[in-house]
Amino acid sequence: MTVHETFLKIAFDEAFEGMRNRSGGPFGAVVVCNGEVIGKSANRVLATHDPTAHAEISAIRQACEATGHYHLPGATLYTTCEPCPMCLGAIYWSGISEVYYALTREDAERMGFSDNHIYQEVTRDPDNRNIPFIQLSSPAAEQLISEWNRNPDRELY
Amino acid sequence: MTVHETFLKIAFDEAFEGMRNRSGGPFGAVVVCNGEVIGKSANRVLATHDPTAHAEISAIRQACEATGHYHLPGATLYTTCEPCPMCLGAIYWSGISEVYYALTREDAERMGFSDNHIYQEVTRDPDNRNIPFIQLSSPAAEQLISEWNRNPDRELY
Repeated sequence: MTVHETFLKIAFDEAFEGMRNRSGGPFGAVVVCNGEVIGKSANRVLATHDPTAHAEISAIRQACEATGHYHLPGATLYTTCEPCPMCLGAIYWSGISEVYYALTREDAERMGFSDNHIYQEVTRDPDNRNIPFIQLSSPAAEQLISEWNRNPDRELY
Repeated sequence: MTVHETFLKIAFDEAFEGMRNRSGGPFGAVVVCNGEVIGKSANRVLATHDPTAHAEISAIRQACEATGHYHLPGATLYTTCEPCPMCLGAIYWSGISEVYYALTREDAERMGFSDNHIYQEVTRDPDNRNIPFIQLSSPAAEQLISEWNRNPDRELY
């Protein structure tokens, strides 16, 4: 087995175990840094009643807990299925360097999951989605921006 | 103040407090169900070293903990800024019914955040993104799909 196949297999092991013990859907993910696994998880949506507890999000949170930092530069994510838009966002925010995956959003759809649908929704204008996204004006909006931008010690992540 | 303005103000109060005590970026969110706040949070990325601890994700997780369920039908999310793709995904997975927001992805960009960039990346083909997304084949892939689809008790979320 190549190094990539070895780590992808760990992600599949997580997926099979999580599916069989009903912790969540059939998905698993592993975060690797310097050849070492620093986070791994199955999908845990059912076990935790947390809709954000996808395998990738859970593995990233675990890796950040291990490193004590919200950025994971140089880390690689292995996941059994192409990340959904939520997990893709988490990958960008965490600064992971590359992603390897096996199944696709269409495979997820064949298993009954809405990854593909959410990929379509995210490209739509906010006021033209299945879930209405409605903009309101607020007197606090500009104040928040200027207070943030005026602070020389602000930390971007 | 209208009901919407009242709940949006609570989200802004969270954002100002979180920004001032450096728990994270200038963002706040509130989940409301039956006229009652069941989750609220500022962005907590810096305080928790967790890149997924955006205000919306944190408020949704809190609301699901309060209700004991991963779905929040009939709930409304109020957020100071248009949700990023990660938080948009979480909104869809949680089944929230509608979203009200004030600032936009372009405003987030003016504050130094990459929401707008991630919105562009999510529409690209996986092999044509800033972060490489590389598909691997795996002998376990089809087995996982068929074992999931054969189980009559599988729970979709």
